[in-house]
Amino acid sequence: MTGNLLHPLPDARGGEVFETLLARPGVRVERIVSHGQATPEEAPYCQPHDEWVLLLAGQARLWIEGEGEIALAPGDRRLIPAGTAHRVTWTAPDEPTVWLALHFGEEEG
Amino acid sequence: MTGNLLHPLPDARGGEVFETLLARPGVRVERIVSHGQATPEEAPYCQPHDEWVLLLAGQARLWIEGEGEIALAPGDRRLIPAGTAHRVTWTAPDEPTVWLALHFGEEEG
Repeated sequence: MTGNLLHPLPDARGGEVFETLLARPGVRVERIVSHGQATPEEAPYCQPHDEWVLLLAGQARLWIEGEGEIALAPGDRRLIPAGTAHRVTWTAPDEPTVWLALHFGEEEG
Repeated sequence: MTGNLLHPLPDARGGEVFETLLARPGVRVERIVSHGQATPEEAPYCQPHDEWVLLLAGQARLWIEGEGEIALAPGDRRLIPAGTAHRVTWTAPDEPTVWLALHFGEEEG
Protein backbone atom coordinates (compact mmCIF):
# COMPACT_ATOMS: atom_id res chain seq x y z
CA MET A 1 0.00 0.00 0.00
CA THR A 2 3.02 2.25 0.24
CA GLY A 3 6.00 2.80 -1.98
CA ASN A 4 6.60 4.81 -5.10
CA LEU A 5 4.93 3.92 -8.39
CA LEU A 6 7.72 5.43 -10.52
CA HIS A 7 10.94 4.47 -8.73
CA PRO A 8 12.20 1.83 -8.91
CA LEU A 9 10.39 0.32 -11.88
CA PRO A 10 10.41 -3.32 -12.96
CA ASP A 11 12.24 -3.98 -16.22
CA ALA A 12 9.47 -4.27 -18.81
CA ARG A 13 11.64 -4.65 -21.88
CA GLY A 14 10.81 -8.33 -22.03
CA GLY A 15 7.08 -7.85 -21.55
CA GLU A 16 4.60 -5.54 -19.90
CA VAL A 17 4.36 -5.79 -16.12
CA PHE A 18 0.89 -5.67 -14.56
CA GLU A 19 0.42 -5.20 -10.83
CA THR A 20 -2.82 -4.84 -8.92
CA LEU A 21 -2.16 -2.18 -6.31
CA LEU A 22 -5.41 -2.58 -4.46
CA ALA A 23 -8.95 -3.73 -5.00
CA ARG A 24 -12.19 -2.67 -3.39
CA PRO A 25 -15.81 -3.47 -4.18
CA GLY A 26 -16.46 -1.80 -7.52
CA VAL A 27 -12.89 -0.97 -8.47
CA ARG A 28 -9.45 -2.46 -9.01
CA VAL A 29 -6.40 -0.22 -9.21
CA GLU A 30 -3.60 -1.46 -11.43
CA ARG A 31 -0.17 -0.22 -12.45
CA ILE A 32 1.06 -1.23 -15.89
CA VAL A 33 4.66 -0.74 -16.98
CA SER A 34 5.32 -0.89 -20.71
CA HIS A 35 8.58 -0.53 -22.60
CA GLY A 36 8.03 -0.38 -26.35
CA GLN A 37 5.11 -2.82 -26.47
CA ALA A 38 1.94 -2.42 -28.48
CA THR A 39 -1.28 -4.42 -28.56
CA PRO A 40 -1.47 -6.71 -31.61
CA GLU A 41 -3.74 -5.14 -34.20
CA GLU A 42 -5.75 -8.33 -34.53
CA ALA A 43 -6.30 -8.66 -30.79
CA PRO A 44 -7.63 -5.40 -29.34
CA TYR A 45 -8.79 -5.23 -25.76
CA CYS A 46 -12.53 -5.07 -25.20
CA GLN A 47 -13.74 -5.46 -21.62
CA PRO A 48 -17.27 -5.61 -20.27
CA HIS A 49 -16.43 -2.89 -17.73
CA ASP A 50 -15.43 0.76 -17.84
CA GLU A 51 -11.73 1.45 -17.56
CA TRP A 52 -9.99 4.75 -16.80
CA VAL A 53 -6.34 5.18 -17.60
CA LEU A 54 -3.89 7.88 -16.55
CA LEU A 55 -0.41 8.07 -17.99
CA LEU A 56 2.08 8.62 -15.16
CA ALA A 57 5.35 8.53 -17.13
CA GLY A 58 6.66 7.90 -20.62
CA GLN A 59 4.77 8.32 -23.89
CA ALA A 60 2.08 6.25 -25.57
CA ARG A 61 -0.50 6.17 -28.29
CA LEU A 62 -3.89 4.63 -27.81
CA TRP A 63 -6.48 3.73 -30.42
CA ILE A 64 -10.08 3.74 -29.24
CA GLU A 65 -12.93 2.46 -31.37
CA GLY A 66 -15.00 5.34 -32.72
CA GLU A 67 -12.43 7.89 -31.65
CA GLY A 68 -9.25 7.04 -33.49
CA GLU A 69 -5.68 7.23 -32.30
CA ILE A 70 -4.62 9.62 -29.57
CA ALA A 71 -1.22 10.48 -28.14
CA LEU A 72 -0.81 10.35 -24.37
CA ALA A 73 1.74 12.24 -22.29
CA PRO A 74 2.14 12.17 -18.51
CA GLY A 75 -1.00 13.54 -16.88
CA ASP A 76 -3.24 12.55 -19.79
CA ARG A 77 -6.22 10.44 -18.84
CA ARG A 78 -8.92 8.72 -20.76
CA LEU A 79 -12.12 6.86 -20.01
CA ILE A 80 -12.58 3.72 -22.08
CA PRO A 81 -16.26 2.78 -21.88
CA ALA A 82 -17.31 -0.84 -21.44
CA GLY A 83 -17.48 -2.73 -24.71
CA THR A 84 -15.24 -0.31 -26.60
CA ALA A 85 -12.39 -1.92 -28.49
CA HIS A 86 -9.03 -0.30 -27.85
CA ARG A 87 -5.39 -0.93 -28.46
CA VAL A 88 -2.11 0.55 -27.37
CA THR A 89 -0.55 1.28 -30.74
CA TRP A 90 2.81 2.51 -29.47
CA THR A 91 4.81 3.05 -26.30
CA ALA A 92 8.16 4.80 -26.12
CA PRO A 93 10.93 2.34 -27.06
CA ASP A 94 13.66 4.04 -25.06
CA GLU A 95 12.07 4.58 -21.65
CA PRO A 96 9.48 2.97 -19.42
CA THR A 97 5.86 4.05 -19.80
CA VAL A 98 3.79 3.83 -16.64
CA TRP A 99 0.00 3.66 -16.58
CA LEU A 100 -2.45 3.81 -13.73
CA ALA A 101 -5.57 1.89 -14.69
CA LEU A 102 -8.84 1.83 -12.78
CA HIS A 103 -11.17 -1.04 -13.63
CA PHE A 104 -14.72 -0.29 -12.54
CA GLY A 105 -17.39 -2.87 -11.74
CA GLU A 106 -15.23 -5.69 -12.95
CA GLU A 107 -16.78 -9.10 -12.68
CA GLU A 108 -15.32 -11.51 -10.22
CA GLY A 109 -12.96 -14.22 -11.35
CA MET B 1 -13.19 12.49 -19.03
CA THR B 2 -10.28 13.62 -21.18
CA GLY B 3 -7.66 16.28 -20.74
CA ASN B 4 -4.43 16.49 -18.84
CA LEU B 5 -4.34 16.47 -15.05
CA LEU B 6 -1.07 18.43 -14.84
CA HIS B 7 -1.34 21.10 -17.55
CA PRO B 8 -2.88 23.57 -17.30
CA LEU B 9 -3.48 23.69 -13.56
CA PRO B 10 -5.89 25.94 -11.72
CA ASP B 11 -4.25 28.58 -9.56
CA ALA B 12 -4.45 27.18 -6.03
CA ARG B 13 -2.52 29.91 -4.25
CA GLY B 14 -5.74 31.29 -2.82
CA GLY B 15 -7.07 27.90 -1.72
CA GLU B 16 -6.94 24.25 -2.60
CA VAL B 17 -8.91 23.24 -5.68
CA PHE B 18 -10.91 20.00 -5.52
CA GLU B 19 -12.36 18.42 -8.65
CA THR B 20 -14.23 15.14 -8.94
CA LEU B 21 -13.00 13.57 -12.15
CA LEU B 22 -15.43 10.71 -12.20
CA ALA B 23 -17.55 8.64 -9.88
CA ARG B 24 -18.71 5.06 -10.09
CA PRO B 25 -20.46 2.79 -7.60
CA GLY B 26 -17.90 2.20 -4.87
CA VAL B 27 -15.38 4.85 -5.85
CA ARG B 28 -14.94 8.56 -6.52
CA VAL B 29 -11.83 9.84 -8.28
CA GLU B 30 -10.72 13.32 -7.30
CA ARG B 31 -7.90 15.65 -8.23
CA ILE B 32 -6.69 18.06 -5.58
CA VAL B 33 -4.37 20.96 -6.36
CA SER B 34 -2.56 22.51 -3.40
CA HIS B 35 -0.14 25.41 -3.31
CA GLY B 36 1.42 25.83 0.10
CA GLN B 37 -1.65 24.87 2.13
CA ALA B 38 -1.72 22.61 5.16
CA THR B 39 -4.59 21.13 7.15
CA PRO B 40 -5.14 23.00 10.43
CA GLU B 41 -3.65 21.00 13.27
CA GLU B 42 -6.87 21.19 15.26
CA ALA B 43 -9.01 19.97 12.36
CA PRO B 44 -7.57 16.78 10.88
CA TYR B 45 -9.48 14.86 8.26
CA CYS B 46 -11.11 11.62 9.39
CA GLN B 47 -13.50 9.96 6.97
CA PRO B 48 -15.64 6.88 7.42
CA HIS B 49 -14.25 5.41 4.17
CA ASP B 50 -10.87 4.26 2.91
CA GLU B 51 -8.95 6.78 0.84
CA TRP B 52 -5.96 6.20 -1.41
CA VAL B 53 -3.78 9.08 -2.45
CA LEU B 54 -1.10 9.31 -5.12
CA LEU B 55 1.10 12.37 -5.48
CA LEU B 56 1.28 13.36 -9.15
CA ALA B 57 3.40 16.51 -8.89
CA GLY B 58 4.97 18.78 -6.30
CA GLN B 59 5.98 17.87 -2.76
CA ALA B 60 3.97 17.27 0.38
CA ARG B 61 4.09 15.95 3.90
CA LEU B 62 1.29 13.94 5.37
CA TRP B 63 0.68 13.03 8.98
CA ILE B 64 -1.27 9.84 9.58
CA GLU B 65 -2.51 8.77 13.01
CA GLY B 66 -0.44 5.90 14.36
CA GLU B 67 2.15 6.29 11.64
CA GLY B 68 3.57 9.78 12.03
CA GLU B 69 4.65 12.23 9.37
CA ILE B 70 5.78 11.09 5.94
CA ALA B 71 7.20 12.99 2.99
CA LEU B 72 5.58 12.44 -0.40
CA ALA B 73 7.20 12.92 -3.79
CA PRO B 74 5.62 12.32 -7.21
CA GLY B 75 4.74 8.64 -7.57
CA ASP B 76 4.33 8.13 -3.82
CA ARG B 77 1.03 6.65 -2.76
CA ARG B 78 -0.59 5.91 0.53
CA LEU B 79 -3.70 4.16 1.76
CA ILE B 80 -5.48 6.02 4.53
CA PRO B 81 -7.79 3.54 6.23
CA ALA B 82 -11.31 4.54 7.23
CA GLY B 83 -11.45 6.24 10.59
CA THR B 84 -7.78 7.22 10.61
CA ALA B 85 -7.09 10.85 11.38
CA HIS B 86 -4.71 12.50 8.94
CA ARG B 87 -3.49 15.93 7.99
CA VAL B 88 -1.47 17.47 5.23
CA THR B 89 1.25 19.16 7.26
CA TRP B 90 3.04 20.89 4.37
CA THR B 91 2.86 21.37 0.63
CA ALA B 92 5.53 23.07 -1.46
CA PRO B 93 5.10 26.85 -1.25
CA ASP B 94 6.69 27.60 -4.62
CA GLU B 95 4.96 25.18 -6.99
CA PRO B 96 1.62 23.41 -7.33
CA THR B 97 1.20 20.03 -5.68
CA VAL B 98 -1.22 17.70 -7.43
CA TRP B 99 -2.90 14.74 -5.76
CA LEU B 100 -5.03 11.97 -7.15
CA ALA B 101 -7.40 10.74 -4.46
CA LEU B 102 -9.61 7.68 -4.62
CA HIS B 103 -12.46 7.58 -2.15
CA PHE B 104 -13.79 4.06 -1.70
CA GLY B 105 -17.26 3.13 -0.55
CA GLU B 106 -18.14 6.68 0.24
CA GLU B 107 -21.60 7.28 1.56
CA GLU B 108 -24.01 9.12 -0.63
CA GLY B 109 -24.30 12.65 -0.19
